[in-house]
Amino acid sequence: MRVSGRGFDEPRPVRITPGFTSAPAGSVLIETGHTRVLCTASVEERVPQFLRGGESGWVTAEYSLLPGSTPVRTAREATRGKVTGRTSEIQRLIGRALRAVVDLKALGERTIWVDCDVIEADGGTRTAAVTGGFVAMCLAMQRLKREGLLTRVPVRDCVAATSVGIVRGIPLLDLEYEEDSQAEVDMNVVMTGHGEFVEIQGTAEGSPFSQDTLDELLRLARIGIAQLVAAQKAILGEDLQGGAETGTGNEE
Amino acid sequence: MRVSGRGFDEPRPVRITPGFTSAPAGSVLIETGHTRVLCTASVEERVPQFLRGGESGWVTAEYSLLPGSTPVRTAREATRGKVTGRTSEIQRLIGRALRAVVDLKALGERTIWVDCDVIEADGGTRTAAVTGGFVAMCLAMQRLKREGLLTRVPVRDCVAATSVGIVRGIPLLDLEYEEDSQAEVDMNVVMTGHGEFVEIQGTAEGSPFSQDTLDELLRLARIGIAQLVAAQKAILGEDLQGGAETGTGNEE
Amino acid sequence: MRVSGRGFDEPRPVRITPGFTSAPAGSVLIETGHTRVLCTASVEERVPQFLRGGESGWVTAEYSLLPGSTPVRTAREATRGKVTGRTSEIQRLIGRALRAVVDLKALGERTIWVDCDVIEADGGTRTAAVTGGFVAMCLAMQRLKREGLLTRVPVRDCVAATSVGIVRGIPLLDLEYEEDSQAEVDMNVVMTGHGEFVEIQGTAEGSPFSQDTLDELLRLARIGIAQLVAAQKAILGEDLQGGAETGTGNEE
Amino acid sequence: MRVSGRGFDEPRPVRITPGFTSAPAGSVLIETGHTRVLCTASVEERVPQFLRGGESGWVTAEYSLLPGSTPVRTAREATRGKVTGRTSEIQRLIGRALRAVVDLKALGERTIWVDCDVIEADGGTRTAAVTGGFVAMCLAMQRLKREGLLTRVPVRDCVAATSVGIVRGIPLLDLEYEEDSQAEVDMNVVMTGHGEFVEIQGTAEGSPFSQDTLDELLRLARIGIAQLVAAQKAILGEDLQGGAETGTGNEE
Amino acid sequence: MRVSGRGFDEPRPVRITPGFTSAPAGSVLIETGHTRVLCTASVEERVPQFLRGGESGWVTAEYSLLPGSTPVRTAREATRGKVTGRTSEIQRLIGRALRAVVDLKALGERTIWVDCDVIEADGGTRTAAVTGGFVAMCLAMQRLKREGLLTRVPVRDCVAATSVGIVRGIPLLDLEYEEDSQAEVDMNVVMTGHGEFVEIQGTAEGSPFSQDTLDELLRLARIGIAQLVAAQKAILGEDLQGGAETGTGNEE
Amino acid sequence: MRVSGRGFDEPRPVRITPGFTSAPAGSVLIETGHTRVLCTASVEERVPQFLRGGESGWVTAEYSLLPGSTPVRTAREATRGKVTGRTSEIQRLIGRALRAVVDLKALGERTIWVDCDVIEADGGTRTAAVTGGFVAMCLAMQRLKREGLLTRVPVRDCVAATSVGIVRGIPLLDLEYEEDSQAEVDMNVVMTGHGEFVEIQGTAEGSPFSQDTLDELLRLARIGIAQLVAAQKAILGEDLQGGAETGTGNEE
Repeated sequence: MRVSGRGFDEPRPVRITPGFTSAPAGSVLIETGHTRVLCTASVEERVPQFLRGGESGWVTAEYSLLPGSTPVRTAREATRGKVTGRTSEIQRLIGRALRAVVDLKALGERTIWVDCDVIEADGGTRTAAVTGGFVAMCLAMQRLKREGLLTRVPVRDCVAATSVGIVRGIPLLDLEYEEDSQAEVDMNVVMTGHGEFVEIQGTAEGSPFSQDTLDELLRLARIGIAQLVAAQKAILGEDLQGGAETGTGNEE
Repeated sequence: MRVSGRGFDEPRPVRITPGFTSAPAGSVLIETGHTRVLCTASVEERVPQFLRGGESGWVTAEYSLLPGSTPVRTAREATRGKVTGRTSEIQRLIGRALRAVVDLKALGERTIWVDCDVIEADGGTRTAAVTGGFVAMCLAMQRLKREGLLTRVPVRDCVAATSVGIVRGIPLLDLEYEEDSQAEVDMNVVMTGHGEFVEIQGTAEGSPFSQDTLDELLRLARIGIAQLVAAQKAILGEDLQGGAETGTGNEE
Repeated sequence: MRVSGRGFDEPRPVRITPGFTSAPAGSVLIETGHTRVLCTASVEERVPQFLRGGESGWVTAEYSLLPGSTPVRTAREATRGKVTGRTSEIQRLIGRALRAVVDLKALGERTIWVDCDVIEADGGTRTAAVTGGFVAMCLAMQRLKREGLLTRVPVRDCVAATSVGIVRGIPLLDLEYEEDSQAEVDMNVVMTGHGEFVEIQGTAEGSPFSQDTLDELLRLARIGIAQLVAAQKAILGEDLQGGAETGTGNEE
Repeated sequence: MRVSGRGFDEPRPVRITPGFTSAPAGSVLIETGHTRVLCTASVEERVPQFLRGGESGWVTAEYSLLPGSTPVRTAREATRGKVTGRTSEIQRLIGRALRAVVDLKALGERTIWVDCDVIEADGGTRTAAVTGGFVAMCLAMQRLKREGLLTRVPVRDCVAATSVGIVRGIPLLDLEYEEDSQAEVDMNVVMTGHGEFVEIQGTAEGSPFSQDTLDELLRLARIGIAQLVAAQKAILGEDLQGGAETGTGNEE
Repeated sequence: MRVSGRGFDEPRPVRITPGFTSAPAGSVLIETGHTRVLCTASVEERVPQFLRGGESGWVTAEYSLLPGSTPVRTAREATRGKVTGRTSEIQRLIGRALRAVVDLKALGERTIWVDCDVIEADGGTRTAAVTGGFVAMCLAMQRLKREGLLTRVPVRDCVAATSVGIVRGIPLLDLEYEEDSQAEVDMNVVMTGHGEFVEIQGTAEGSPFSQDTLDELLRLARIGIAQLVAAQKAILGEDLQGGAETGTGNEE
Repeated sequence: MRVSGRGFDEPRPVRITPGFTSAPAGSVLIETGHTRVLCTASVEERVPQFLRGGESGWVTAEYSLLPGSTPVRTAREATRGKVTGRTSEIQRLIGRALRAVVDLKALGERTIWVDCDVIEADGGTRTAAVTGGFVAMCLAMQRLKREGLLTRVPVRDCVAATSVGIVRGIPLLDLEYEEDSQAEVDMNVVMTGHGEFVEIQGTAEGSPFSQDTLDELLRLARIGIAQLVAAQKAILGEDLQGGAETGTGNEE
């Protein structure tokens, strides 16, 4: 029925590979179906101008589609000399989503840069970037903790994201590119590990949608995000040598 | 209780002045409380490259905060040499919202540019831009009809927008700036005249929110948008000398 | 004879509405015929780099044509990513004109930004911007005085501007767009309340002009500017509750 | 009395060296005192978009201060990524001045680019650029005539420019940098060979000026420009093998 | 002795993984030590303006350091709004190197874009980009051949690159970052499969070098490049299911 | 045989005119055949951010082709809003070449800007810029010494550059434009006064080249550079009133 034979409420398999590269403080490759995003987290020991002296840290994100990530090459934004509106919007979304679960005071006066570079794009790159970016960020925080620069990983909860939409009248979870390009309604949902909303961005591409449709889409999103959070915890638990740490934040 | 003494579900008074300027095909000044946005609609007899030869029209929007629209002057984007991420995001939102109710085929191979310039900013500028931009666009279409270039105003329904949010734990309708700047949750909702969703953008600025909170916010939004649509219809009806025209689209 | 039935030495009616918006320190809408320019003056409590520590203030101006201000839409400079040469030239002219009558030492180490956004363009937008910008600037200075930040309004005289030109061989005062577009000679004149020149910019678009023509054009400009200065004084006098204040500067 | 010992109505010596470089169609080095500007004229066999098919040619100018032309190095505009307002204003002035004496129809559908690069700057670079640029442009036209692409040099008159100003209350002709930097009034005047005005740009830097002052400044400008036109005719006459050619245009 | 225990003429192990991503026509991950570069080749069925109608194809390259590829984060060029001089220089080098072995006429009027995105940077990223980019390009050509768009892979020879340099007076092959940053002489050498030079870029960072030093450095480069070419042939041979094809070019 | 009748190992005559302009600290016009480059050296009493507090000076170079320097006009980079890759590459080459012979510590915390503006381009502009830029830089240093700001001219050796190449199979010294545009191999060589290499940039434009070809090209370069260094010494010696100074650096 779906392009890939999945059920309407069945997400693509997700794989998160921690330590995919070794230069940055945190690094993961996240794969959901054919979509692959390299997420790295780099630490800079200062904060942007508007936070100076405020005893608060900052988390910010940047995103790009590598030119070869799409079947028809995507023009490189550096060459065009500016970031497109789409990229800017996605960068802002990722940054807000991550900051929503971080205790910026506890982070101290430093910035974590989360870079999400899409190696292969098959729909859902921005939501994969949120989900993978969270893990990369936590890995960087864990390194800061190991180095004695932090006493705990300053996150209050996990955060993950998925897309849902209406294709030919049917609500679907986790759209791949071919589905996404014909969706009547397209929605990105960011939730915490405890199932609360961090961000909802739903757009009627073709025809407006009802409250009932909205409810069904959010129900699907909840299913998908629960699986993503489980994958995040599997990685961060192992890596943290105790696993409860991030979890502890959740139970508060 | 609220800054302005309004009830939690009470929107600011809205005033839409058609024909505020006379050069463009359509022009309105929309005022919601102290927020004032000049919306103009200009017609160009060609479409962007990606639509050429496709027998379809296009609607696009641009938005700016005039430098003097805020108590602390906002730097002019032309001088900075680029559009900020915030502006880009808003422009895309307005354009999508308007296109959601336009029959682009029926518009013919022409573009309607909807410019939303904020003269005074006190919260809710982007939603006022959607609401006022819709009226400006319809006025331009009406002119095209009078000139014999269109046989009907090619819109399927009204579209209007409002903001809702949680401030100190309380859900509020139509946030003004002082409320918006301390909101824990901030949501922009775009709906049609028939009460279906065109766009939902909700963000937890401080703490994540539950499904119940979401439901309450959307209920408030529905109240506010119904009043805005009534204001739109009052203008477009009068102006159209018959009023039923756009209305007819609504009643289908 | 003229497009609008005016006599060759008859300026368009001018209307200056103070307090058109309330966010900025000073704000006026100036209307000369169909030309309408929103002029706002914002105060920033610092000066540009080159003046730091020099115990002098600064006045600077920015100008834009709103996209919908012209019958054929004007592309937005923020979107193009740069200010056109025309805009840059106009901005410089307005800034110089205003600074010519301001006592920058007495202003103190602060900057007044005068923003002139053209809402409707029918010729003479730059001269309207000078005339209206002066009033907005003075209103901002009056507010600073009321707030005790200035002991007097630090201007030495009024400053206002008009255009004159030769159309089909005939010298005309205050050209509207249709006249301006076919003028053989186009001249902008900026004068003080005492009738001295601050700036003269005259250009032979079609054929060079003689000393006699120049003399006649300047004579017309003087007529127009006297009326504009009267309009400025009417506003500033009332508003100042005494009116003599700016006038006093003039009589020195 | 003046920095250089000149009389108040005495211009600096001018030297125009034709054929200073050989790549472009026309090339001169113009020197007025220490100010030296390389003016080249290049021919392109097409016109800008807005003139296509209009059977008219075009003349346009570009200007730059070479970084090493000033005692304190001037930052290179290419490196800064944009042209300053000052440069833009000067480029527009030069272009307008040259076009004022060219018969664009007779030029045919081609563009003459006049590049004015200041090798050494000691005041009056923009006026030297007009004066030298005119000669470079005529030399290029003469080459087109020799090549049979034009039947005559399509200029109606010479055009030249000088600066005048008030320094410590005294009207002076042809300001050098030290004078210019302390001038109360600064005026650039562009005139034809027949002594008619093409452009007047006068600015009160310090205090406004009277009609009498204006008259005296224009009288001085007329003296200076007569000498510059003589220098232009000396070059173009020789070079044209007949000299009367440009002159003939004048007598028509 | 060397950071990594290698001999002075011992290159780092190289691994080339074909088909690392599947969207583009050709894709490899090349790893030399810790340096990892994703090289993709995308085909566009048209050529740049300057080649239109010339019956020739084009090969061009773009390069970037991903922000997280370095221990201290590298600012993203898209965000800065321009490509650095270093990047531009590298892009030009890769493009020239690839074109040097391609029969552009035989490629037909199409462009191959080779994108080299550095995932991890430990010295030698530009030379890895040339070596890996060549393989990605050939894979894309092989796909075009399989699709019947080409009758043969239009390359005349392999091309590969390595770096050599003088560190503390000792000539070394294939510098890693720590060596590179203290090299007195740094040289990038691009050679064909037959051992001829395509490009030599040698720079004395600290002190000038002699002809003897140059000779020794080129001898080392030759050793390294032979191994890289062997790795290229291993991939392209297998992949081509015939292998001799590119090889044939080599044996001529 | 060659375009200009020169022998294959015969460089064009070189002429270096010191003091060509007087505003900058150092200034020369260098002419090699028809190629003419104005090189100026300006001193700024501070260093770039990355060197602050490091007690080291800096030397940097900028380069441009003036629009009229080529028979077909070259578009001005300031107007295009960015520096081309070619220019950026050349600027970096010149800067590296000059820094290779400067004792930056001895220069003190100041920057020497070397601007190389090509007045006429006939091949070899970048190598002329290196050769002439070195002289301009030394003249600026000499001025600093005369002003007591330096105790000696802090250069260790002369540095000069030339181009060599293969045209129709024949190795040639010092290519002019017509030769350069058809060269199979193009190489720029920068050497010190003592004949050691500072930079080698060789590119096979058409077909790869052998070690023997490389050796022959470098032999030719050595001949050309010896003559250029002699010309440099002639100027700097005279000008230095002692001449041995730079020479002394060489003999150390």
